Amino acid sequence: MKDYIKAFAPATVANVACAFDILGFAVDQPGDEVIVTPNDKSGITITSITGDNKRLPLDPKKNTATVAVQAFLDKLGQKDVGLNVEINKKMPLGSGMGSSAASAAAALVAINALFDYPFSKRELIPFAMESEGVACGSKHVDNAAPAIMGGFVLIRSYEPLDVIEIPSPENLFCTLAHPILELNTSDSRRILKKEINLSIAVKQWGNIAGLISGLYSSDFQLIGRSLTDYIFEPTRSFVIPAFNEIKTAALSAGALGCSISGSGPSLFALSDSKDIAENVANAMHEAFLKGNIQSQTYVSTINKKGAIILEER
Amino acid sequence: MKDYIKAFAPATVANVACAFDILGFAVDQPGDEVIVTPNDKSGITITSITGDNKRLPLDPKKNTATVAVQAFLDKLGQKDVGLNVEINKKMPLGSGMGSSAASAAAALVAINALFDYPFSKRELIPFAMESEGVACGSKHVDNAAPAIMGGFVLIRSYEPLDVIEIPSPENLFCTLAHPILELNTSDSRRILKKEINLSIAVKQWGNIAGLISGLYSSDFQLIGRSLTDYIFEPTRSFVIPAFNEIKTAALSAGALGCSISGSGPSLFALSDSKDIAENVANAMHEAFLKGNIQSQTYVSTINKKGAIILEER
Repeated sequence: MKDYIKAFAPATVANVACAFDILGFAVDQPGDEVIVTPNDKSGITITSITGDNKRLPLDPKKNTATVAVQAFLDKLGQKDVGLNVEINKKMPLGSGMGSSAASAAAALVAINALFDYPFSKRELIPFAMESEGVACGSKHVDNAAPAIMGGFVLIRSYEPLDVIEIPSPENLFCTLAHPILELNTSDSRRILKKEINLSIAVKQWGNIAGLISGLYSSDFQLIGRSLTDYIFEPTRSFVIPAFNEIKTAALSAGALGCSISGSGPSLFALSDSKDIAENVANAMHEAFLKGNIQSQTYVSTINKKGAIILEER
Repeated sequence: MKDYIKAFAPATVANVACAFDILGFAVDQPGDEVIVTPNDKSGITITSITGDNKRLPLDPKKNTATVAVQAFLDKLGQKDVGLNVEINKKMPLGSGMGSSAASAAAALVAINALFDYPFSKRELIPFAMESEGVACGSKHVDNAAPAIMGGFVLIRSYEPLDVIEIPSPENLFCTLAHPILELNTSDSRRILKKEINLSIAVKQWGNIAGLISGLYSSDFQLIGRSLTDYIFEPTRSFVIPAFNEIKTAALSAGALGCSISGSGPSLFALSDSKDIAENVANAMHEAFLKGNIQSQTYVSTINKKGAIILEER
């Protein structure tokens, strides 16, 4: 067994406009780092968490990263191993950018490397599913799967879990805009309607099919036309200040489409060049400022690597 | 202007399991033939209809083929042209295999050839939309678009109309089984629920995304796993005698998936070889017989040509 593994996992965008609960993708930055080292004791100890303003639990049974690691150890039948886990949050919590999934994904690729890769990346996803149950009250992996595997990832089904990698065009860029606000994901799910109108549902799944088709065929215009959410955005956008203004600013700056990232309050936009994606970032930042809201923006390609080992010895 | 055009358009499968109202595909057979010839009069005359047991209207304002032709002429501003239209139905009516769309599609490619191709095939689709309003009370083109263009066709949106061609694997075969029964499409739509549970809708659009992905990536197993309809089949299958037995027979014979074709009562199944598709046809036929129901079966590749000109002079 190695002595020290440091891993990185990226932020992710889930609920990609029309594709609620079934699709997510990874970006290059921001992201979290997790360091795992064996110790002489038994069980998992969280030695430190940075970047969280002391808001994340140090109890390994309550922290998403260590819940994922524990699920991994349970599967291997490793009852007596002792581990120190250090979590360096380098992205905002409760932002809609898959913060808890990033920590879990980084922890999982780290522990997998420590044990000399007993699992493929795809096989790590069920362990992340356990930890997402702790983080947001429902066992979703539309953030964790792309955080681990990279690229666009479709969760076709949860029972059984069926995870499909979806290709995407080389020149597709993502702009993330994170207003300095926070939403609790489990609260945010509560404002969703339980029933949807059939004619609206048909429009929504036309867009889902269009989005998948556009990603496969590198048809940027089709991707753009398909990035419309008839079901959740109209409800969820109410809790994001100045949502319509930010979205309009992004589209006016040339974005193919723009919607809520995950459950918000961050927004994402997709563009077909880096220049446009940067213009979109500026436009979104300015639009938030008009509402007296500070924001952080990130411009990135689609991250096709997912979680990676930064250092091992 | 030419003197005589004879065209063929194929049967189509719409509502492809999970993909209600947004996806259809064409098969090689059965299909309809339409003959269009100019005459010295003004307006459209239906000179004969065969194969319909005298059930289709000879009034050109009420027949789907001629309503489509009239929309075509209106668009061209051709008010004074005189046309004879002969319709040879070579497929069952009210079967769920896109019978009215096949007649309209054949008529449209015929009239387009007569006028020396003022429109692309794609541009003919809106004329078929007019005629589908006459046939089934709602302006759908998930049968007409693949009948005209061939292959799998996604209707991403109706307003505005956005039609996307979806590739499909070379060795994908369709079995159609048509029980000698009849459903009226507009009646059949009435038994649909107007509201859908969110968690069910998420499962459905996971399958839609999976089906599109499987068609692009030639992943037969993914196509099969995605051919599950949580929303309509449980309701609509009630009106198809022995539905569960027929479907079970198809899957047991090796089909990737099986569901209702269009609004039924026909069923379709997809398979990854011609041999299996033929075994599936036999199994479905036998299963219908056990319920004392006669059926016709058809085995075909996915028809990538769509409507064609058979003869012109």
